[in-house]
Amino acid sequence: MGGAINLAEKLAGFSDHWAPRIVARYNDNEVRIVKVEGEFIWHKHDETDELFLVLDGTLEIELRERTITLRPGELFVVPRGTEHRPAARNGEVHMLLIDPQDLPNTGDVATATKAVEI
Amino acid sequence: MGGAINLAEKLAGFSDHWAPRIVARYNDNEVRIVKVEGEFIWHKHDETDELFLVLDGTLEIELRERTITLRPGELFVVPRGTEHRPAARNGEVHMLLIDPQDLPNTGDVATATKAVEI
Repeated sequence: MGGAINLAEKLAGFSDHWAPRIVARYNDNEVRIVKVEGEFIWHKHDETDELFLVLDGTLEIELRERTITLRPGELFVVPRGTEHRPAARNGEVHMLLIDPQDLPNTGDVATATKAVEI
Repeated sequence: MGGAINLAEKLAGFSDHWAPRIVARYNDNEVRIVKVEGEFIWHKHDETDELFLVLDGTLEIELRERTITLRPGELFVVPRGTEHRPAARNGEVHMLLIDPQDLPNTGDVATATKAVEI
């Protein structure tokens, strides 16, 4: 089962954007870390909520009706079925995500970047 | 669905120990924050993993075979069925937990402190 997982150390190990890494598993979910910059695409996950916790930088999660702004130490859960577009418009953002295992990050396997274990 | 959840602001709203507060829900799980000091009891959760993320202070998670030490920004998932005893022996610890909804923190409803929504 490994030991303590240091998020900053894990984040220092890669530099590409929108490419989540799996750092732990909780029941049938993956704890992922990711670096992002710029806009993602509008998408939704019909079968699951998605948890975002910002570790560094400022993330906007655009919903169709409003925008949630997350700074370090702030979290938000996008409810299932809710269209959203994450965007990092003021520099790189580091964040932790929790998603069900194998969930495609775009909501669509054809366009997704698969999360890999580190 | 509310807005951004600032963990430090939520933690500033209470001061008792070993009394988790629910700050968000992710599918059938509760995202809880808690302040702890001293030793908890040995217990296990047969049906679920338990995620710990330390936000402030130094937490020891004693397992029967070894001890995991977590500092701010470090996480650990205690696998289901694994006996563990969290302990904060060097001052107060603030942490985020993820547990299935209504899971008793001691593994036993008779001795548990029920997590409440804030």
